[in-house]
Amino acid sequence: MQHLTTTRLRGHADTRLEEVAGRLDGLLAADPDLSFQVAAFHEGRPVLDAWGGPHLAEDSVIVPYSVTKNAIGLSIGLLIERGELDLDERVATYWPEFAAKGKQFVTVRQLLSHQAGLPQASPALTWDELLDHHAAAGRLAASRPFWHPGSAFGYHAITIGNLGDELVFRVTGRTLHEFYEQEIRVPHGIDFFLGLPADLEDRRADVLPMIRPVSDTSAPTFSALGPVVFGSMGGDVDLGNSRRSWEYGHPAGSGTGTARGLARLFAAAVTGVDGADPFLSADTVAEIGQQQIRGYDEVLHQQDRAHAIVFQKPSQQLAFGGPRSFGHDGAAGALACVDPDTGLAFAWTVARGPWPGGADPRAVALARELGILLSS
Amino acid sequence: MQHLTTTRLRGHADTRLEEVAGRLDGLLAADPDLSFQVAAFHEGRPVLDAWGGPHLAEDSVIVPYSVTKNAIGLSIGLLIERGELDLDERVATYWPEFAAKGKQFVTVRQLLSHQAGLPQASPALTWDELLDHHAAAGRLAASRPFWHPGSAFGYHAITIGNLGDELVFRVTGRTLHEFYEQEIRVPHGIDFFLGLPADLEDRRADVLPMIRPVSDTSAPTFSALGPVVFGSMGGDVDLGNSRRSWEYGHPAGSGTGTARGLARLFAAAVTGVDGADPFLSADTVAEIGQQQIRGYDEVLHQQDRAHAIVFQKPSQQLAFGGPRSFGHDGAAGALACVDPDTGLAFAWTVARGPWPGGADPRAVALARELGILLSS
Amino acid sequence: MQHLTTTRLRGHADTRLEEVAGRLDGLLAADPDLSFQVAAFHEGRPVLDAWGGPHLAEDSVIVPYSVTKNAIGLSIGLLIERGELDLDERVATYWPEFAAKGKQFVTVRQLLSHQAGLPQASPALTWDELLDHHAAAGRLAASRPFWHPGSAFGYHAITIGNLGDELVFRVTGRTLHEFYEQEIRVPHGIDFFLGLPADLEDRRADVLPMIRPVSDTSAPTFSALGPVVFGSMGGDVDLGNSRRSWEYGHPAGSGTGTARGLARLFAAAVTGVDGADPFLSADTVAEIGQQQIRGYDEVLHQQDRAHAIVFQKPSQQLAFGGPRSFGHDGAAGALACVDPDTGLAFAWTVARGPWPGGADPRAVALARELGILLSS
Repeated sequence: MQHLTTTRLRGHADTRLEEVAGRLDGLLAADPDLSFQVAAFHEGRPVLDAWGGPHLAEDSVIVPYSVTKNAIGLSIGLLIERGELDLDERVATYWPEFAAKGKQFVTVRQLLSHQAGLPQASPALTWDELLDHHAAAGRLAASRPFWHPGSAFGYHAITIGNLGDELVFRVTGRTLHEFYEQEIRVPHGIDFFLGLPADLEDRRADVLPMIRPVSDTSAPTFSALGPVVFGSMGGDVDLGNSRRSWEYGHPAGSGTGTARGLARLFAAAVTGVDGADPFLSADTVAEIGQQQIRGYDEVLHQQDRAHAIVFQKPSQQLAFGGPRSFGHDGAAGALACVDPDTGLAFAWTVARGPWPGGADPRAVALARELGILLSS
Repeated sequence: MQHLTTTRLRGHADTRLEEVAGRLDGLLAADPDLSFQVAAFHEGRPVLDAWGGPHLAEDSVIVPYSVTKNAIGLSIGLLIERGELDLDERVATYWPEFAAKGKQFVTVRQLLSHQAGLPQASPALTWDELLDHHAAAGRLAASRPFWHPGSAFGYHAITIGNLGDELVFRVTGRTLHEFYEQEIRVPHGIDFFLGLPADLEDRRADVLPMIRPVSDTSAPTFSALGPVVFGSMGGDVDLGNSRRSWEYGHPAGSGTGTARGLARLFAAAVTGVDGADPFLSADTVAEIGQQQIRGYDEVLHQQDRAHAIVFQKPSQQLAFGGPRSFGHDGAAGALACVDPDTGLAFAWTVARGPWPGGADPRAVALARELGILLSS
Repeated sequence: MQHLTTTRLRGHADTRLEEVAGRLDGLLAADPDLSFQVAAFHEGRPVLDAWGGPHLAEDSVIVPYSVTKNAIGLSIGLLIERGELDLDERVATYWPEFAAKGKQFVTVRQLLSHQAGLPQASPALTWDELLDHHAAAGRLAASRPFWHPGSAFGYHAITIGNLGDELVFRVTGRTLHEFYEQEIRVPHGIDFFLGLPADLEDRRADVLPMIRPVSDTSAPTFSALGPVVFGSMGGDVDLGNSRRSWEYGHPAGSGTGTARGLARLFAAAVTGVDGADPFLSADTVAEIGQQQIRGYDEVLHQQDRAHAIVFQKPSQQLAFGGPRSFGHDGAAGALACVDPDTGLAFAWTVARGPWPGGADPRAVALARELGILLSS
């Protein structure tokens, strides 16, 4: 990588990415409020590490919302790699209480691909329960699924974190937070935390509110499940900015870190970094990145959603890579993904994402473009 | 409830529903032909029992078409409650002849959620067979499904009644009609009949023909299955008005009763009425009301259809309640549904429903509104 | 059949098809380049055998692309008929190496209905491998599926031929080509070849390039899988016209024959020809023609695609018959299909198909019309 000489974009980039850097610099010129970090590794070597705008500096850490879910998926991958977890096993084998209320046949594969029908409990989970290693999981284990498991899927926006946490605990005796910290973050030097340490607090940047259009002319749609799932996420906890949230580091949505850390996380897993072997074999990468489900999402009430094991798969609206790529976006614009076929690991964080949320379209297009450009 | 003082709407309503009653009265004022009955129970107590218009009186009974299917679902629920039927058992366990032609693995769950591929036999069933407790069922048991069971679903508009009738017979030795009459209708005083008794015939009101638009500009759509399924329902039997039909009381479409009876049926099952316990436990209610399938309907050639065990689940076009609600509409505008989360049981009958059929949109919106209003 | 007296259309037709023949003649008049063959059998008797246009003569043989897949489906049917193959058996029972990479549970039914997730290998298969009886199959057996088998489907445009070939080989010790030739083509006198014999080469007609519109204004769509699947089908082999291709006779796309041969193939299988019994029983016909999957195709990125065992099922865009009909179209306009309910076997070949490809809409409509007309 070479030092960037662009006007507003700072950092380093591979010489093949000069034109790309120029375009990113142009985005900053066009919108003086735009603040992002972008990072990419190709075949384990850093090829892009840049940032710009008034709200994010070189070492700023921010909550990328559901991009955090990538840490669940890669932790699960490591358990599969070590032979400690089998996707085709029933959840109840590891977690006996889960067998209640018609869930005895639910497999780990179904649970981790949003098919188990547990996007919420009834009555709805509180933040006190959700920001706890076992309370929400216990309530979910005692719940009847909203649909017959395996017959449909719907985004377990928050509960996938609690379910994944408990599953890791049942298998390893450690919380997902501990397992990720000890087995992935520390050994591979990843600047992305499930629970931001107190001594890094001065690096923290706030997620800024999106600018809503003056009038929204889209037709209202009805979803029976949406309001019930998202109803509990009210004003008492701001997942992105509340101290309670980022201190806890909810695995589904409130990890904290840099784009550099997120890209390195995927590179360490899939291609290896600093000349080391990747921490997942190609077979495990293929297994956790394999598409498990595509179509209508019961919670989001949207078509053409697709999931691998926890991760998202590319779709028309989220076309970040080829058919073996996987990753996850966040509600406020961030994105991290990897494509084993091109060797690209990519991440983007943004302080104020574009309306109406989900992955910043500029990041999605950039991830796809870099994969093609660097592997051709 | 208090006596209504509205001009055209007659009956009783809870004081919290005064504004609602006023709006219903306004509907009657705006359309002098409109004739409906509406009834609701909240947590087992009647909160609305009203009617209006020239074609339906306080005690008029009418065929609500597929709203009748709710009686199948609740009868099945009672068998589950009593441990006599297991949704995950193969149909052939109870009904050995059903194992023919690739149906040996079909479960009760699949059969009762329109997944078994038996919306019609080949050659098509006659009304003589359909209006018989065993003839159509025997033909269906000998048929190969139109799709690989479990791979798709499609509305078994009429045959679900024959299949449910035979299944109940195999389990109990009684027809569905007898079981419903003896175990549900009589004990709970339900004014809704599978086969209208001769001495109630003077209460019967006709279903009136819909008013079709002068020209239908919607594009024609092709469905291979639709014409085959509905082809046999020709002119020799008018399901809503033929004596043969309502005397028999086909479980899929020609029960006869009042909105009051239909609402009480759901209230007796889910919340209990007159201070009694509900006849289904909360667990059984959750089991029969759980969504089994959603998406494309092979027979109706429509997207976003969803079914529980026999019942319909809410959808964009049929948004009658929350994610745990269930019920069934009828081809000529009627609707009955229940929401265990709000405690609302609701029913609507209408003499001449709005084109092009299915649940009267006014009833759908009212059910949803009452659930929210009364539980808040 | 009677000799046609139409101006441009030549051949024979049943007297009931005079008006149809007149319309086909009109198509030839309106487009002097249009060249097609059309053939139909009804209940085993030829009712239409006609051709016209400058590029196809009475005995011209041409590659109908994926219409060739019908030969796979009927060969599989014959193995089922003889009890040598069970659709619900695991593929690995017949083909042990197939169990690799998470495919141990994949059934023959899933493999043959495009559900196994093997539309391509990684790295992509070469034409040298695809035009070989075992090379591509071996690579596919060693591959991890692009999606979790059974969770989705996508058109295995070419590989279904290699997979079917190997499966037949494992069951019979003969290639699919040998099995089809010896058990179906020769005994029933079918003018459709998997591998055109050298002495018939003078009958061969080229597939002519489609005429593309000057500008294509449709919005570009993203499909992660499409480019990967179709990327290997580059310029070195022209499936329709290259000697390598039609000499080999790829079962997924490069058989060679007449419309007469294709219609007779279906008639011999389903209704019998020349007074003989059909070579498949009604039960086997129903089993291979049963819909296995419908909805979103992962490879084609299209909704409302549907498959039986190898065959296509009717859909809005491909409405060739009733709910028990099945068949397959080709990329350049050809179509062959059968409807057991009407007794019609139909085929259409065309030298230059209409843009943008797939079944010629005139053929689709004609197949549906003939089925209704001849069975009423």
